[in-house]
Amino acid sequence: MRPVAIIGIGQTKIDEQWEKSIRQIAMEAILAALKDAGRASAEGLFLGNMMSGIINSQNNLAPLVADWAGLTIPAVKVEAACGSGGAALRSGLMAVASGELESVLVAGVEKMTDRNPHEVTAALATAADADYELEMGVSFIGLSALIMRRYMHEYGWKHADFAPFAINAHANALHNPFARLQHKITLEDFEKSAMIATPINLLDASPIGDGAAALYIVPADSVQSGTRVLIAGSASSTDTIALHDRSDLLFLTAAFKSAQAAYKQAGVGPKDIDVFELHDAFTIMTALSLEACGFAERGQGPRLGLDGDITPTGHIPVMTRGGLKARGHPVGATGVYQVVEVVQQLRGECGETQVPEARIGMAQNIGGSGATIITHILKRE
Amino acid sequence: MRPVAIIGIGQTKIDEQWEKSIRQIAMEAILAALKDAGRASAEGLFLGNMMSGIINSQNNLAPLVADWAGLTIPAVKVEAACGSGGAALRSGLMAVASGELESVLVAGVEKMTDRNPHEVTAALATAADADYELEMGVSFIGLSALIMRRYMHEYGWKHADFAPFAINAHANALHNPFARLQHKITLEDFEKSAMIATPINLLDASPIGDGAAALYIVPADSVQSGTRVLIAGSASSTDTIALHDRSDLLFLTAAFKSAQAAYKQAGVGPKDIDVFELHDAFTIMTALSLEACGFAERGQGPRLGLDGDITPTGHIPVMTRGGLKARGHPVGATGVYQVVEVVQQLRGECGETQVPEARIGMAQNIGGSGATIITHILKRE
Repeated sequence: MRPVAIIGIGQTKIDEQWEKSIRQIAMEAILAALKDAGRASAEGLFLGNMMSGIINSQNNLAPLVADWAGLTIPAVKVEAACGSGGAALRSGLMAVASGELESVLVAGVEKMTDRNPHEVTAALATAADADYELEMGVSFIGLSALIMRRYMHEYGWKHADFAPFAINAHANALHNPFARLQHKITLEDFEKSAMIATPINLLDASPIGDGAAALYIVPADSVQSGTRVLIAGSASSTDTIALHDRSDLLFLTAAFKSAQAAYKQAGVGPKDIDVFELHDAFTIMTALSLEACGFAERGQGPRLGLDGDITPTGHIPVMTRGGLKARGHPVGATGVYQVVEVVQQLRGECGETQVPEARIGMAQNIGGSGATIITHILKRE
Repeated sequence: MRPVAIIGIGQTKIDEQWEKSIRQIAMEAILAALKDAGRASAEGLFLGNMMSGIINSQNNLAPLVADWAGLTIPAVKVEAACGSGGAALRSGLMAVASGELESVLVAGVEKMTDRNPHEVTAALATAADADYELEMGVSFIGLSALIMRRYMHEYGWKHADFAPFAINAHANALHNPFARLQHKITLEDFEKSAMIATPINLLDASPIGDGAAALYIVPADSVQSGTRVLIAGSASSTDTIALHDRSDLLFLTAAFKSAQAAYKQAGVGPKDIDVFELHDAFTIMTALSLEACGFAERGQGPRLGLDGDITPTGHIPVMTRGGLKARGHPVGATGVYQVVEVVQQLRGECGETQVPEARIGMAQNIGGSGATIITHILKRE
């Protein structure tokens, strides 16, 4: 594969965007990425989105978005539930790496707030196993609650031990103008927040939202070295969707496999990662991701939060722009937001939450409760 | 790009498969392709599907299908409405061509008959522009009817002039054990069939169905030449989704562009194509595809049917296994069925409907009323 670089990023504020259609939101992120890249168009668009068919009555979304952005270019939608954004980047990457395309826009978009909450909950549940999980009436958050309860039982953590993950996310989002929730939370807020699905309460969970993010990628040899952001590693792995089919409920096997493959490609290990945008849909997922990717021993993920290792100046900064928890989780767009944020870190554009001298960053996007996991490692060089 | 070859094909009979889940149908096609290729697994799965989120309450479909087939491999769903199958092949092709993966399964699946017809009609309509077309109450077939009515007015054809397309499709499907409609039809049947959306009647339209098809692709240099089927051309183009935004309602610009790009890659022209599996969702689309791809002058597509040029022994055989019209149209799977059928022709496996000495074949898959068009050219060599 020929090396690929990211030369443009764009994003919209995650919010309830009732006055904007899904195409409008996607277009805004794409135009921002084009402007940032200094380009007028691209040879292709790969669009991550999970639920436009259900929520927006719109399939065939990619050419619609391309057309609305004034680009009649080859365009395709990639779907891997909440991992759609990362999957779209990986598909776009291969299009450039193969030599087939010289420039590609990768975008992720989701517009979720036009429907009422129970419809959105039903749509989110399509990320689980329809025949064996949904059929039993379990929601997506319910599945994560099953994992978290077992994890707490197995390793002896109490609920408040997960608080630092959410507190860090909110503290960082305060400095991200694109974040949905721009307010601090305290340990007391965390402990008092409403229970959603025991043991997951409101502040363990990420908020949905309407938003889009975009990237512009090109062959690395067309960009001057010294300032470029390379995609040094890219890997995807899968596991069973249904939790009851997993050999181990408390280990994200697909995260382990995709991280190992990405580390190998990039020639790095966990110790080399300066910033890690992980998929903190729920606080339990933060712990499991940190463990599967080699930053903590099994069952010891919460320790990193309690010890202050995850802040922008800690050993392994995570959710530096707010993460899913506070930046927000427009599901099919999230994977692209993560990569945009890693690029911002590597460019040194993060102000108050800048990780000092960040040179290597990782983004990991999860579809379902660990079924699809896509890891990207970026390097500034 | 390094050249890529198809070494395995699989398909299921298109039917109402009420006793089988979507994962089961997809698995059957995948296992058939693995068996045909003589392989036990692959390094990745690219799955074309349009409406599993709406109809089957199942997103994250690709890892689900991979798991059910006993393959915990990287897997992603590609969506481009009815062009999803062709789009999945193109994504899989780039994964192999880039050197990232050494073997890839490409599959398409759709399970549509579990819902009642008005729900399926609504799901199909998501291929159109939700905000500007669906909002007006127009169905997907209604949009095609608008095109056909204008075409007949503009070029002076009468409805019966489109009959040969449907008659040829049914005559060929009679010899395809995987086809949904295995019966002949006559001109009288065509003229007497029920009106659906003037001027489109029942026998202008393709039937939906449940079905899956699969391909196994590898780098061409790993296969002995002389017997291999190469993907010699692959191109995707897009146009506006909404018909009112088209500069020309009666010309498939995206078909023209993607066919021209594929011809150029393959170093061939329309005269070299021995067999053409086109996207005959409605008879009008057959005429427009033949014109856009250079087989007929503008407005003269129906002439090829009336002159007998489209039969397996004609100048440009189309729908040689039944086409969408009689093989059936499980929307997200159709593009893969088309390529499977071209491979069958190039291998000389088509019996009664074998195109003599077929060496170069083309498949063209359409998403929406011409919004996404993907063309593949295959060569036996």
